[in-house]
Formats: sequence, structure tokens, C-alpha cells
Amino acid sequence: MPQFNYKIIVAYDGTNYSGWQIQSNSSSIQEIIQTLLEKILQESVKVIGSGRTDAGVHALGQTAHFKTQKKVDEQRILKSLNALLPPDIRILSMEQVTNDFHSQYGTTTKIYRYHISLNPVLNPFRRLYCWQIKTPLQLNKIKKAATYFIGTHDFTTFANEARTGVAAYDSVRTINRLDITEQNGEIELEFEGDGFLYKMVRNIVGTLIEVGQDKIQPENISTLIAAKDRRLAGMAAPPNGLFLVQVNYKESTSSKSFKLL
Amino acid sequence: MPQFNYKIIVAYDGTNYSGWQIQSNSSSIQEIIQTLLEKILQESVKVIGSGRTDAGVHALGQTAHFKTQKKVDEQRILKSLNALLPPDIRILSMEQVTNDFHSQYGTTTKIYRYHISLNPVLNPFRRLYCWQIKTPLQLNKIKKAATYFIGTHDFTTFANEARTGVAAYDSVRTINRLDITEQNGEIELEFEGDGFLYKMVRNIVGTLIEVGQDKIQPENISTLIAAKDRRLAGMAAPPNGLFLVQVNYKESTSSKSFKLL
Repeated sequence: MPQFNYKIIVAYDGTNYSGWQIQSNSSSIQEIIQTLLEKILQESVKVIGSGRTDAGVHALGQTAHFKTQKKVDEQRILKSLNALLPPDIRILSMEQVTNDFHSQYGTTTKIYRYHISLNPVLNPFRRLYCWQIKTPLQLNKIKKAATYFIGTHDFTTFANEARTGVAAYDSVRTINRLDITEQNGEIELEFEGDGFLYKMVRNIVGTLIEVGQDKIQPENISTLIAAKDRRLAGMAAPPNGLFLVQVNYKESTSSKSFKLL
Repeated sequence: MPQFNYKIIVAYDGTNYSGWQIQSNSSSIQEIIQTLLEKILQESVKVIGSGRTDAGVHALGQTAHFKTQKKVDEQRILKSLNALLPPDIRILSMEQVTNDFHSQYGTTTKIYRYHISLNPVLNPFRRLYCWQIKTPLQLNKIKKAATYFIGTHDFTTFANEARTGVAAYDSVRTINRLDITEQNGEIELEFEGDGFLYKMVRNIVGTLIEVGQDKIQPENISTLIAAKDRRLAGMAAPPNGLFLVQVNYKESTSSKSFKLL
């Protein structure tokens, strides 16, 4: 039976959800989209995302795909979905892709962004979208420490649920860049890499903040990475400061994500 | 008995409130602040704001004052208040002012901003902070129409609950400027004036949108103003796109408001 494969790009405010991935007894973004698609298409559908995002984590360009038994009108389905979805979840684009496209296995890089507020009084409009740090931070130390993360490393130290007994290459990832900028009293950390282990971005951000607070020295990051021991890293940064910004693929199909945040 | 007068600047996300002003059986920002102040100061306090904002309207720089029987430490009270307030209400500053300072009667100008989204798919992170218009808008017509509002006029046509039988000067207000800018698929309308009648900003915005949709011609704005008839104006724009940005006073005390929105 012929199948048709569709790619969707999804933005969501993760505040009110248990995360991307379907879980029993909780409201996930994946399940909400899948349930509505099945209702619209009147067939069983499986929505597969590029990866999970945790409860409270946001997305500007999460990417997913699903297959259907019949060819559909992308514009019509996109409009129907957005009309039925709650306003904190939006489908930004939908397009037919070749049958071998897979949102999870076909990725080249992913971009994540983390927001930290240094304002002593947290702007109420930023309360759900950044981590407020009230102690002074040494930004130059954070920037120096960040350079040690760039490149290909075994990131076991910065992964939660690190599986023991699994060959080391499982935890090897490449971070292409880690850009740190400061403006309007906020620090923004933008990560691009070929993939990120569970809670890896939040664990790295938490460690970088401890560097900024002079609890960890930038030069020690190499040692921490080499130790492959989760207990050595800093605390995980909270989920609400994290955004999945963009997912890139080998054969770049048109990509669209909002750039307001 | 001596009294001490304090001025506070308040930012709030109005989404979850019935508005600034105390009302029976609903949750107002004024009441929440006043109740906490009474708890902290252990005396009866009356918080007086520069004016009301409706349910769903936001503020970056609402200004209020309150008097106390004893002199207090502003920094301590500000910290205590912010520690007890819900995170969608923040006190940005607190300072002692002369006893004749009055947040409502001492104003020179107020600045309001209204956000309109033209994006066909509304960014989920903007859903609570702008009005989405899906029809094409002629921005040049909106800009032309805006010029007719600038200056001193009787704004009865654009006021709700216009009191009949009250002398005309009650509805006379001066709009110093109405700046319209467009970026990232949003139109921002910034009003500065000596005061605004009830729902005046939202009624003017609603009318300007109808101008952009070619339902009202810019040249007709003068006629609408002159008619002093509320039934002639366009529909009121929804509250969630509106922000009270700043309140200015004759003797300018230090002013602080977030500039992120």
C-alpha cells in the first residue's frame, strides 16, 4: 500500500505540557497533535519527532514527520490543525517529503538556545522563558569555559541516565558552536551540535553558571569531561529557559521558525 | 500624625487578572499589592494607581502611591513585596516622594503601546500579547488616519460609557504622538497623551484596523471625531494587545520600566 510522508515544523510554549513525548496520564505535545491528525485524516497516524523535549522546555522549530495512506492537501491540513490546536502549540509548516525522510534519524544538527536573566527583578513577561540568576556572574570565565565543550567529546559527565555498560561511542557527540551573548540584562547561550544527550544542554548550562560563580574553574572543564562521571557536573539548569530552535537535515527542505525569541 | 508617601512602579502580565482596579469577587492587581503591603507594614494601606487597566491589559510601568504612618526602608519593602507577589506582578522600583505626590492627579503624560500580529500563524509566544489580524492591512492608510487623532480633541466617539449631560471638556484629551512601526510581522502603535478616556486606546486601534481594511477612509476620521458619537467608531481592539508602558509626572522622579516589549 502506498504511503505519503509529511514533515511538520512545530512551535510550542512548553509551560503547560509534560513535554514532547507521549506519556501515560499526562498531556504531551506529540499526543495532542497525533490525536487531532487522526481525527482530521480519519486514519491511524504516528507522529515522530526529532527528539523529546522535557516538561517546560519550549520549541521554536521542533520537527516531526508522519505517514498517511492517502495524499493530503498540506495547506488544508495545516489550517485544520492550527484551528483545533490550543494556541500555545502551532504548526508553522507542513510539506510532503520523500518516504525515506525521518525526523529523528536524518538530522545533521540541532540548535538549542538557553536564556538567563541577570535582572534583580525578573521581568514578569520573561518569567516563563528564562532562568533568573541573582548572584554576580563572571561572563569572561563562562565564555572561556564554553570553549572546552566545543568539538567531539564523550559527554557522559553531562548526561542524565547515563547507561552503564554501554560502549562509549553512545555518549560521543559533537558541539559545533556554543555562542554566548549578553543584552538587556539577559545572557543567551546558543548550542549547535549533531545531537544532545538527555539533559545535556541543561547540565552544561548549570555547570557554566557555576563557572561564572567561581565555583568551577574554566580549565577544569576538560577534566570533568574526561572523568565521564555525572556526579562531577554542576546542577541542571531549569527547563523553562530552554528552547529547541531548529532541526537541520541532510537534504535541506525549506525550514521556517520564528525568530522572536 | 505624620505620613510618609511612597511611589511604586509596577509591571504585570494582565492575562490572569480582572484588571488593575479593586472589584468585588475578582482578582485585581491593586488588591493583591495592597493586601500584601498591609501584611508587611502591619497597618491599613490604600494603594492608588495612575488609572485603571482593564482585564487582560498588561503594564510595563503602571505607577501607584501609598501613604504610611511610619517611615520604611524602601529596598526592604520592595524585596518583601516581590518575594510574596506572584511572578506575573513585579514591583520595579519604590521611592519616597513628597506628600503632595499623587499617582493619578499629578500625571503629565501616559504612554500606551498596542501590538498587532500580521503573521498568518500566530507565534505561540506572542498569543497573550497581541491581536492577530488575518486580513491584509493597508499600512499607509493606517498611518494617514493616525495623524487625524494627534492633537487636542473631544474624544467622545472613542470613549466607552461616555456620560451624557456632562460638559464637553470632560472628554477633551490631547494625543501628543501616535507612532506606528512595523517589524517581524507585527505592527506596534505607540500613543502618548495627557490622558485617555475609558477604552479610548482600544477603540482608536479598532478603528485604525478598519481603516487598514478599507472599511473607513482616513479622511473620515475628523468627521467621526466631530460627531461625538460612540456608535460611529470601529470595534474595540481586544485587551491582550495593550500595554501601559510609562506614566510621566511634572516633577520627574526617577522612572524605570522594562523595555523588552
